Amino acid sequence: MNAYEKLEAHCRKISDLGHISAIVNWDESAMMPVGGGAARSRATATLNVITHDLEVAPEIGMLLAECAELELSAWQQANVRIIQRNFDRGNCLSSEFVREQTEAVMASEQAWRVSRAKNDWQTMMPHLKRVVSLTRKEAALRASKTGLGLYDAMLDLYEPGMRAERLDELFAPLKLELPGLVTAIIERQSKTPLLPLGNQFETTAQRKLGLTIMNAMGFDFEHGRLDTSHHPFCGGVPEDVRLTTRYNSNDFLQSLFAVIHETGHAMYEQGRPIAWRSQPVSEALSMGTHESQSLLMEMQACRSLNFVEFAAPIMAESFGHSANEPAWSTDNLYRHVTQVKRGYIRVDADEATYPLHVILRYELEKALLEGSLEVDELPAAWDEKMTTYLGISTVGNFENGVLQDVHWPSGLIGYFPTYTLGAMMAAQLFAAARVAIPEIPAQIGRGQFTELVAWLRQHVHHLGSSVSVDEVLVNATGQALTPEPFLAHLRSRYLAE
Amino acid sequence: MNAYEKLEAHCRKISDLGHISAIVNWDESAMMPVGGGAARSRATATLNVITHDLEVAPEIGMLLAECAELELSAWQQANVRIIQRNFDRGNCLSSEFVREQTEAVMASEQAWRVSRAKNDWQTMMPHLKRVVSLTRKEAALRASKTGLGLYDAMLDLYEPGMRAERLDELFAPLKLELPGLVTAIIERQSKTPLLPLGNQFETTAQRKLGLTIMNAMGFDFEHGRLDTSHHPFCGGVPEDVRLTTRYNSNDFLQSLFAVIHETGHAMYEQGRPIAWRSQPVSEALSMGTHESQSLLMEMQACRSLNFVEFAAPIMAESFGHSANEPAWSTDNLYRHVTQVKRGYIRVDADEATYPLHVILRYELEKALLEGSLEVDELPAAWDEKMTTYLGISTVGNFENGVLQDVHWPSGLIGYFPTYTLGAMMAAQLFAAARVAIPEIPAQIGRGQFTELVAWLRQHVHHLGSSVSVDEVLVNATGQALTPEPFLAHLRSRYLAE
Repeated sequence: MNAYEKLEAHCRKISDLGHISAIVNWDESAMMPVGGGAARSRATATLNVITHDLEVAPEIGMLLAECAELELSAWQQANVRIIQRNFDRGNCLSSEFVREQTEAVMASEQAWRVSRAKNDWQTMMPHLKRVVSLTRKEAALRASKTGLGLYDAMLDLYEPGMRAERLDELFAPLKLELPGLVTAIIERQSKTPLLPLGNQFETTAQRKLGLTIMNAMGFDFEHGRLDTSHHPFCGGVPEDVRLTTRYNSNDFLQSLFAVIHETGHAMYEQGRPIAWRSQPVSEALSMGTHESQSLLMEMQACRSLNFVEFAAPIMAESFGHSANEPAWSTDNLYRHVTQVKRGYIRVDADEATYPLHVILRYELEKALLEGSLEVDELPAAWDEKMTTYLGISTVGNFENGVLQDVHWPSGLIGYFPTYTLGAMMAAQLFAAARVAIPEIPAQIGRGQFTELVAWLRQHVHHLGSSVSVDEVLVNATGQALTPEPFLAHLRSRYLAE
Repeated sequence: MNAYEKLEAHCRKISDLGHISAIVNWDESAMMPVGGGAARSRATATLNVITHDLEVAPEIGMLLAECAELELSAWQQANVRIIQRNFDRGNCLSSEFVREQTEAVMASEQAWRVSRAKNDWQTMMPHLKRVVSLTRKEAALRASKTGLGLYDAMLDLYEPGMRAERLDELFAPLKLELPGLVTAIIERQSKTPLLPLGNQFETTAQRKLGLTIMNAMGFDFEHGRLDTSHHPFCGGVPEDVRLTTRYNSNDFLQSLFAVIHETGHAMYEQGRPIAWRSQPVSEALSMGTHESQSLLMEMQACRSLNFVEFAAPIMAESFGHSANEPAWSTDNLYRHVTQVKRGYIRVDADEATYPLHVILRYELEKALLEGSLEVDELPAAWDEKMTTYLGISTVGNFENGVLQDVHWPSGLIGYFPTYTLGAMMAAQLFAAARVAIPEIPAQIGRGQFTELVAWLRQHVHHLGSSVSVDEVLVNATGQALTPEPFLAHLRSRYLAE
């Protein structure tokens, strides 16, 4: 075995432990009884430390140096690049830090599930303080090794190459245009009232509908499954993707579009290059890219009039209704899935208000990380920005305010912006796909996703991490990341005549 | 930290990986889609090798030597004894062997699930040959290190201290008495025909009934859950016990008694000494002891007339019947749960024929391991013994013959005898418990298990592996392991006037 082959063998081990970790993490969210939490945290910490030790094994450094002498293919070179990056990232943190952080984060996530349900900020605060303090420490360690700023050092983990400065530029047009756009949309939508759909949607029927749509989208059930969890997510491994949703008996659309969203993520995972599956170069390019795949499916493809034409009769039938009833008509269902309103909850937000939720979090978490905002000041700061951006107050409403997301309790700071980067990429990619294959909207109107998925496979999924985000976008769409197609999409869907 | 404390810390890591492994193994059986199998096998092999490497780390040997100089409590000494035993066991096998065996076993188990369903011996045979050949190699490696015979070297893994010679002595009275006993029981039972219960038992109602009985038995749902799998089993960890059953819409009793059986296992796990949970001394004493806990609940406690008195109205109500219907009377249900018949399937066997299924497997697997029987001769040998012991032929019926159990495809040779050792222990322990607390049968008649469980906690569960099986039995029942209480139980339940 030459140095490169040895590196691959070593990475295969890391990938195997990543597989194990993905399954137990899914289990923790979707299956574990509460009493299992403390023991699970300890066990996961041990697994994470062992993985970390493999990631920073000094032999990797030596093998990487030897690789410089070898003739490698383009993919091998890209693989080496990511291995080097992961090795450098791993070496920012000690094993002891990894253990301390894992245990703090898992205790905090477990506390969050209870505190959020009880609107209990006081119990959650000390957990959050501990986790934020560890994330600040992590950012400082990373910043000192990479020379990046504190926030950039974390952001780079989720969106490699992205910097706060560019984020500010990308977000500026949204911050400028969206508040007015939202007002205009709400004004316009108020003229055609929604016909209610009822509120008796059985879980079994909702689940069946979700599976039907996943199937139409091309999800491979030999390599994945759908379950229930507190928050919808997509976990597991490409060979065994675990996606989850949750069921609200008053509103089947919530769960259905969560399923569609997570299926978008899942299709990306199932489309990762097979020959490179156990190597870092096969992994998702960035969290923004991942989100672009879920949002392309959810927002661009499936909240379109075409998709609703296909899905309306299936939805009606699922719950014992007829597509002839006015409430279950394509028009009324389309109005339901494109309704814009100013609400508390990010994950329930429509695509027009969503970026405002993200910008709020981005601004707060940056201040939090840099130390100009403290954890106990968060609820007030949250309320102030919610009032400014969305005109609604969250005083005393922690459950639907600062406690609504698991990210900060999980130590994820620098992650939120990727949701809106994903929305931009989704709009950019979907526009390009429609130019390349003009039949796509009509196909979606017949529930056919094959050509769309094939285009995504070719231009995104199969590339893994072999190129950069901007390279993907330039190749697929002709330009680097830009907010304009996203804004154009909103104007066209919500305000065009 | 002194040497003993260092050993404990090291064992905690091994226990953490054991936790992770227990959860992913449960997942593999209860949750994983088939396409995830190959990647999962590789990932599990990597985890097993890492665990193995921790188990045989040379520092353990040094720390064990240093422990000889320390003043240790009785439990610490017992812990050291088991650590030494596990260290010696681990050192019989190389990491490479562990990887090869894990991958072969997982591929074989995955093939078995398909082959059994298709009655396909030809596809399964090469997998089984490979696994048996690896188990023979394992036995040879263990035998040469321990000085035990080939079969004893494997048996000792599952039932420490047990030897084939003693097994032969314990099984001889069963082999002698059971065939005649079974004939007499069947003859007697034929005089009172069973009233059928119908064949429309919805899974949801079956599951709810199972949960009700688990609850009565004292299962702690904060620390465990019930799911569905191909074969019922009890996995997970004491803090998070995962038990499974399967549902047959024609026969709810099958699933219910599987639940009761697995709950017996689960209660043992949930009762392991809390202060020692991450240490080897807290682990179950032996597989026979584990089975004694499941069979005590299933056979001794819950197939009793007392239990049926309690459960009959609950069963009737679960499926929309009334306890006044003759079929749903206590008497008829009791006849159902104590019906003896000669059947193909071990896991569906009643307690009188069950040991014959075990003795058949014990004799075959011993010959298989020692090389006097080859894998391709198994179906014929199986048929011959089935005809001798149970009077039924399995020619061409692999599904209900040699392919019915996962044990051999899993490389488990030396495990089957523990089922019948467990049946003996269960009879011995339950008889002693009733002497100590004469109200137990009446309590079970009211669905109260608290005092029985408390007695088991004290005499079995809380002891972990701190003493030997015979010590447990002598302390709890006044004598070492003996088949007599089991035979007495059968005579009394099935043939007394």
